[in-house]
Amino acid sequence: MLIWNEDQRSKDYSHIAETFRPSHADYTYHEKYGNRDYRGGGRSSARETAARVAAGGLAKLFLQKQSINIQAYVSQVGSLKLTKTYQELDLTLIETNAVRCPDPAMAQIMFDYIDGVRKNGDSVGGIITCVIKGVPVGLGEPVFDKLHAELGKAMLSINAVKGFEYGSGFEGVSLLGSAHNDAFYTDENGIVRTKTNHSGGIQGGISNGEDIYFNVAFKPVATIMQDQDSVDVNGDKATVSGKGRHDPCVLPRAVPIVEAMAALVLADFSLRNRLSKV
Amino acid sequence: MLIWNEDQRSKDYSHIAETFRPSHADYTYHEKYGNRDYRGGGRSSARETAARVAAGGLAKLFLQKQSINIQAYVSQVGSLKLTKTYQELDLTLIETNAVRCPDPAMAQIMFDYIDGVRKNGDSVGGIITCVIKGVPVGLGEPVFDKLHAELGKAMLSINAVKGFEYGSGFEGVSLLGSAHNDAFYTDENGIVRTKTNHSGGIQGGISNGEDIYFNVAFKPVATIMQDQDSVDVNGDKATVSGKGRHDPCVLPRAVPIVEAMAALVLADFSLRNRLSKV
Amino acid sequence: MLIWNEDQRSKDYSHIAETFRPSHADYTYHEKYGNRDYRGGGRSSARETAARVAAGGLAKLFLQKQSINIQAYVSQVGSLKLTKTYQELDLTLIETNAVRCPDPAMAQIMFDYIDGVRKNGDSVGGIITCVIKGVPVGLGEPVFDKLHAELGKAMLSINAVKGFEYGSGFEGVSLLGSAHNDAFYTDENGIVRTKTNHSGGIQGGISNGEDIYFNVAFKPVATIMQDQDSVDVNGDKATVSGKGRHDPCVLPRAVPIVEAMAALVLADFSLRNRLSKV
Amino acid sequence: MLIWNEDQRSKDYSHIAETFRPSHADYTYHEKYGNRDYRGGGRSSARETAARVAAGGLAKLFLQKQSINIQAYVSQVGSLKLTKTYQELDLTLIETNAVRCPDPAMAQIMFDYIDGVRKNGDSVGGIITCVIKGVPVGLGEPVFDKLHAELGKAMLSINAVKGFEYGSGFEGVSLLGSAHNDAFYTDENGIVRTKTNHSGGIQGGISNGEDIYFNVAFKPVATIMQDQDSVDVNGDKATVSGKGRHDPCVLPRAVPIVEAMAALVLADFSLRNRLSKV
Repeated sequence: MLIWNEDQRSKDYSHIAETFRPSHADYTYHEKYGNRDYRGGGRSSARETAARVAAGGLAKLFLQKQSINIQAYVSQVGSLKLTKTYQELDLTLIETNAVRCPDPAMAQIMFDYIDGVRKNGDSVGGIITCVIKGVPVGLGEPVFDKLHAELGKAMLSINAVKGFEYGSGFEGVSLLGSAHNDAFYTDENGIVRTKTNHSGGIQGGISNGEDIYFNVAFKPVATIMQDQDSVDVNGDKATVSGKGRHDPCVLPRAVPIVEAMAALVLADFSLRNRLSKV
Repeated sequence: MLIWNEDQRSKDYSHIAETFRPSHADYTYHEKYGNRDYRGGGRSSARETAARVAAGGLAKLFLQKQSINIQAYVSQVGSLKLTKTYQELDLTLIETNAVRCPDPAMAQIMFDYIDGVRKNGDSVGGIITCVIKGVPVGLGEPVFDKLHAELGKAMLSINAVKGFEYGSGFEGVSLLGSAHNDAFYTDENGIVRTKTNHSGGIQGGISNGEDIYFNVAFKPVATIMQDQDSVDVNGDKATVSGKGRHDPCVLPRAVPIVEAMAALVLADFSLRNRLSKV
Repeated sequence: MLIWNEDQRSKDYSHIAETFRPSHADYTYHEKYGNRDYRGGGRSSARETAARVAAGGLAKLFLQKQSINIQAYVSQVGSLKLTKTYQELDLTLIETNAVRCPDPAMAQIMFDYIDGVRKNGDSVGGIITCVIKGVPVGLGEPVFDKLHAELGKAMLSINAVKGFEYGSGFEGVSLLGSAHNDAFYTDENGIVRTKTNHSGGIQGGISNGEDIYFNVAFKPVATIMQDQDSVDVNGDKATVSGKGRHDPCVLPRAVPIVEAMAALVLADFSLRNRLSKV
Repeated sequence: MLIWNEDQRSKDYSHIAETFRPSHADYTYHEKYGNRDYRGGGRSSARETAARVAAGGLAKLFLQKQSINIQAYVSQVGSLKLTKTYQELDLTLIETNAVRCPDPAMAQIMFDYIDGVRKNGDSVGGIITCVIKGVPVGLGEPVFDKLHAELGKAMLSINAVKGFEYGSGFEGVSLLGSAHNDAFYTDENGIVRTKTNHSGGIQGGISNGEDIYFNVAFKPVATIMQDQDSVDVNGDKATVSGKGRHDPCVLPRAVPIVEAMAALVLADFSLRNRLSKV
């Protein structure tokens, strides 16, 4: 697979050849490597994720054969937050709007909000929720390479991600154990299930057959169309002006990246999960 | 280093030899491996983290020589939450109380709450905050092995952890980019610094010299001293009664584990961060 | 598994605290790490291989369940060389003599030769041949992690090893392709076999079901009971005298190490060789 | 870097779509993967090494800055063997002839021999010797990832390689330790050196500053222009006729591959060999 980077406009970035954009990777790359590609196409650009999405496409095909299905959607933009859980939403609507939010009314509100942010030359963050159905019991390793630990690392490796939680996540910390524990039962097909799913489909680092679901927090992207205080490569005070490409909210574009990274992690664990008959 | 597991009482666990404790690793281990050590000392036990803490102790000595200092503390138990930031707290007080919370008044409240939970045979979760000072610019890799991605994986590999966020984390998603961006300036020693630190000391996956700080969410532990519905290894309905050891809140004990895992990650990156003079 | 290093006599080595033994790891460790354990029990000691043999024992049990059997023997000591191939030898005789050579007459000659070398305070090298039967078709990876490449690395990681060859090895380079190629046929059980086995059971990096066999060359060990020219840690001329423990020929002791490393490699590939039904 | 595979002639290979070429990877790939690319351009083709040579070119540039220099040459074709050591040869002559042998007279003899083999539709193997100068003291890891173990694995991962030896290699096994040991001395520049170099520049898995040298054995390539007995994918008897491209001796073409793999290994170790000042 080969993707030519044909849509670059290197001269758009000449104004930052010598200055560091706030909250970008400019300064850390400069200090660590002694050089950086300031022209928008370097390794710190989210363009790098195109390769992930391409590889994730293959992983998804591999997982489909095992009836594993991955769907992600935008569940929050700024402080606009879906209150319905994924079970209450119609996930077939995700791709029907530009925001990739399965609630059409909220999608419109989010769209208008993002548009307003764009007009102000600003940016905004949000949350992507991902749901994985059909995972068999047994994926994941018991100590360091727990299934959710690898999913977390994969998500945190995506540009602009600041947090990861699965199952009951940060909210679950306030619950008592008696309310949080997922009681087991045997369903009509003789399959062991849990009545609730605070575990998010993973117990002891290993999938238990229930849906896996998690949230990924994205910061507002650093590039804004406003003048900002900064320093140049000599440490002198400088102003970074707002030029170049500007995406006010990466959330909608990040949905396929989240799905791709989830697919890669699951495909890896599926391959590691050798059938036990030796 | 060798730690004998001398304080085991295997017979305390005979009642779960054939049943699955809700939200434990019992069921997933049984399905994946065909066997599990139900006696409390198996690989899914948090006893496994003793090895991490021991190794982390060496890593801390190594980091101290580089003036890197790691401190973690309990910032939330149930819904009891410290409202002060780590800068507003006196971190030298962490070890002065059993809860490992640097606010003595809140520590007492948390202690009493945990004690009440214990008396009810229940359990409760919480949040640990970790602060790392003195990290030089340049630790971390640019694509998959970003510094925060490895920290996140390390934390998520600890028993009972459900979430990880660094810097502005989940709350930061609501901010606008203009408020979230950390403006650069040069301090009186000629060092490039940021005015705010929403980035949590990491930009583009690489440390920028500011404090690294992050939160780790722990669920209420699954073992409670109450009868719970479950199934046995044959899938038949069963009741798991509350026996064995019971720790109503692991947060205080998990503080050294969080520090140890952070130390191991930083030591690894320090070793990878080859000086550039070839 | 735990092996206490109880039979150390550290004071035997005090004479080399400040000097470098020729052809030992003393000098390279000193330069690389700034310290070394000169007392005979450091990481460069072949005592380190005890852990390999212990782990290899587990790997062998795992492989036995798959009917994979590994046998190694001493095929050459100094220039005393077995002329029979492994097919012509009775490998059940390997453990009947101290040299671990399956030809009893040659074993006695080798034994006497080693004893003479010992009396002269000298040392001698040799070759170990290893045969692996019962390997299914399909172990090994196609590009970098070829089965023989991993076997070679494993053998070369053993102390004192200088060379590795499999199948026709170095001698095979003189053959013409028409003589070297292993013609395929189908045996009476319908299994595809080869008439000859110059390939040594591996084609394109992947096992083909025939016997795997290889040779491992061991140098004469560096420790001898003679005075030798050297330098001390200051670079000044020094004499290393012959003291401490002295094993004139490591070949017999290295047989289980070769088997253990082969078992570990095969166990790893067996675990990687996932059944293809997804 | 991108190399288009433009010179393929897939139809040359239609005759082996259903039969297995003796001593090729056809059979093992078929059994392991269920499919193979019989058209000459699959993963088992030595065309795959083009990527290695390209990457090795970058590694060589990196090593040149550290004054590390790698040179390989053909030292044996069939039983035609150079008797001079690398020190006695003029390595600047390697690229002056098609065989890549630094002895012009022997190169001509080898050339004629290969040409005769070609006319007979046969193939022949040989040995490549590689010399690495300028390696600093300290490259390599002490236990499993010894410098020569990684070099050995790298060489054994090249198509058609059957053996690897470094320093005194297989011949050294006949020496006594008193003759094999490399005595240390301090040279006029105050550098610790060895009088002989049976160690091949590596002691205890770590480079000692002397020249590294090793031999790599290549079998006669499997493709020959003669009819050969084989079986087809159904296990039925079949004849593989001699068609398609035919390279009677890969040794000259393999010289840059050996150099490239050596460069990649050394570049990796150089990056791992962190300066000790922390």
